[in-house]
Amino acid sequence: MTLATTETTTEFSLPDIQAAAARIDGIVRRTPLLESARLNDRIGGRLLVKAECLQHTGSFKFRGAYNRLAAMDPKTRARGILAYSSGNHAQGVARAAQMFGVPATIIMPRDAPAMKQRNTAEYGATIVLYDRHGESREEIGRQIAAEQGLTLVKPYDDPLIMAGQGTSGLECAQQCAALGAVPDVALAPTGGGGLMAGFSTAMKAAFPDLQLFAVEPDGYDDMARSLHTGTRVANVATPASICDAIMTPEPGELTFPVNRRTLTGGLTVSDGEVRKAMADAFAELKIVIEPGGCVALAAVLSGRLPVAGRTVVVVASGGNVDPALFADILAQAS
Amino acid sequence: MTLATTETTTEFSLPDIQAAAARIDGIVRRTPLLESARLNDRIGGRLLVKAECLQHTGSFKFRGAYNRLAAMDPKTRARGILAYSSGNHAQGVARAAQMFGVPATIIMPRDAPAMKQRNTAEYGATIVLYDRHGESREEIGRQIAAEQGLTLVKPYDDPLIMAGQGTSGLECAQQCAALGAVPDVALAPTGGGGLMAGFSTAMKAAFPDLQLFAVEPDGYDDMARSLHTGTRVANVATPASICDAIMTPEPGELTFPVNRRTLTGGLTVSDGEVRKAMADAFAELKIVIEPGGCVALAAVLSGRLPVAGRTVVVVASGGNVDPALFADILAQAS
Repeated sequence: MTLATTETTTEFSLPDIQAAAARIDGIVRRTPLLESARLNDRIGGRLLVKAECLQHTGSFKFRGAYNRLAAMDPKTRARGILAYSSGNHAQGVARAAQMFGVPATIIMPRDAPAMKQRNTAEYGATIVLYDRHGESREEIGRQIAAEQGLTLVKPYDDPLIMAGQGTSGLECAQQCAALGAVPDVALAPTGGGGLMAGFSTAMKAAFPDLQLFAVEPDGYDDMARSLHTGTRVANVATPASICDAIMTPEPGELTFPVNRRTLTGGLTVSDGEVRKAMADAFAELKIVIEPGGCVALAAVLSGRLPVAGRTVVVVASGGNVDPALFADILAQAS
Repeated sequence: MTLATTETTTEFSLPDIQAAAARIDGIVRRTPLLESARLNDRIGGRLLVKAECLQHTGSFKFRGAYNRLAAMDPKTRARGILAYSSGNHAQGVARAAQMFGVPATIIMPRDAPAMKQRNTAEYGATIVLYDRHGESREEIGRQIAAEQGLTLVKPYDDPLIMAGQGTSGLECAQQCAALGAVPDVALAPTGGGGLMAGFSTAMKAAFPDLQLFAVEPDGYDDMARSLHTGTRVANVATPASICDAIMTPEPGELTFPVNRRTLTGGLTVSDGEVRKAMADAFAELKIVIEPGGCVALAAVLSGRLPVAGRTVVVVASGGNVDPALFADILAQAS
């Protein structure tokens, strides 16, 4: 088991991401790398924000989902897709399935943001709700998949998903080069670690001296502790957090060996720091970032990572936030 | 006087915009052309949104300001710049002056949004406030310019400003072509008409059959009426509006002959339609658009312009909106 895992993940490298980039070319949006003179002044460095909230379906998840479905055998794909997700992977898979004209069933927690549930349904998917605290989404998923002959598209523990997410890093490296910027450090929001595995692999290939940090919500520092101990450890408590997109129990089995190879470490941020960073992104970048998508920006703007004199890349990984919460955050900030 | 105007504006054409594009290359951001599957479904057509709110300083105004300053004699420029503006031109000029290391004085209405005043000051400009209803900004400007030897950078009635703003249209035409999209109709927010003069000239050069519409707030339909009558007419009343960026008294002397040549007509929208469109841009595009920057999108989403079966481009021209107003709009929408 350990051996198989190692073999699979050792194989994951830049060519996988390049193959994904070719597969999704013209479908996935090349998101902008944004910069604000005033944010640069504030941190005393150079801050570049990869705005994946502007991706189709409002998060990077569409990259992996489309790549996964595009690589499937058409007959298998036509029988239908199954996914479980707190909302962003749900929307990415639902939209990709819609584009391929195949049915999708999505298992979502009952407390997922209303916007994410509604959007997933509007992309034509069938939604099955479950209780995040009492039921196992994996168990529900296995049962439905077996009954209906559907193919499970996992949220992160899949090389094709990691490769798809990694295309954001390929683009980002090209965009840095076009700006003449050599990033010293890069941070990305981290749940299961799929985005980070792909992003870090692509960025590290372009900038070998780059330091990379996973960012998680306070209380969900499974990746930080796993990197520290060198082995996958799970979160103990599951405190309340507004960062619904990245409240995952532990690093992925396939993503962790990759992240262990590429990352320098992990950081956490509080909900309060995330709220402030969301208001700053509104004011200075004019983009909508959801809480879980804003933890990397929050780590920089809150000073949790010292960045003076350095060039810093952060991924803003999603923008699917309910308007009432966003309004509350802006009202508090103003 | 009439002859001189005609001569100047007849000369304004695609090569001016191409020259501006070369001058601002690498400085001005290439803003994305966004699209939402769900908004397309809603209008029954294809909607492409040129997100100029993501431009440096949060609006297209930086394009023209930088182009104007870049084309100046360096000695003249070093003596300093003067501008009057409700806020977006102010920020564009202040930031461009800061980048060239020259002083800027900006005359702003006392009731300009707090964010616009603060940002302009933070770009290092000296701000002079005036009363929008009782004082003439042109008169105040002339006096300060004469006393201090400053060069006035007008907000729209200047071929270099029009050309700079037009680079958004050049980009947009290239982006449409890359998507394989041939737009049937394009709309842009219109105050003095500088953006529209440049944008329409560039887009019409690429797509000769394109229909172009200026969009204004209800009560500020000076451009629509001027296009209808064929001669510049001013607004009579000045009703309250949240669209501070485009509450101009009449079309520009130099911009109008250009717009008369390129535009099909003008449309207006209500504050309520603008608020709804801002909430839609938040939810579906993940961008922050200010009221005045959102009138073109509002014209499409409200159905003021029938667009079923057509490919429509709208410019989202700015994103500098106070958080309290944005929060109020989201709270009402949710």
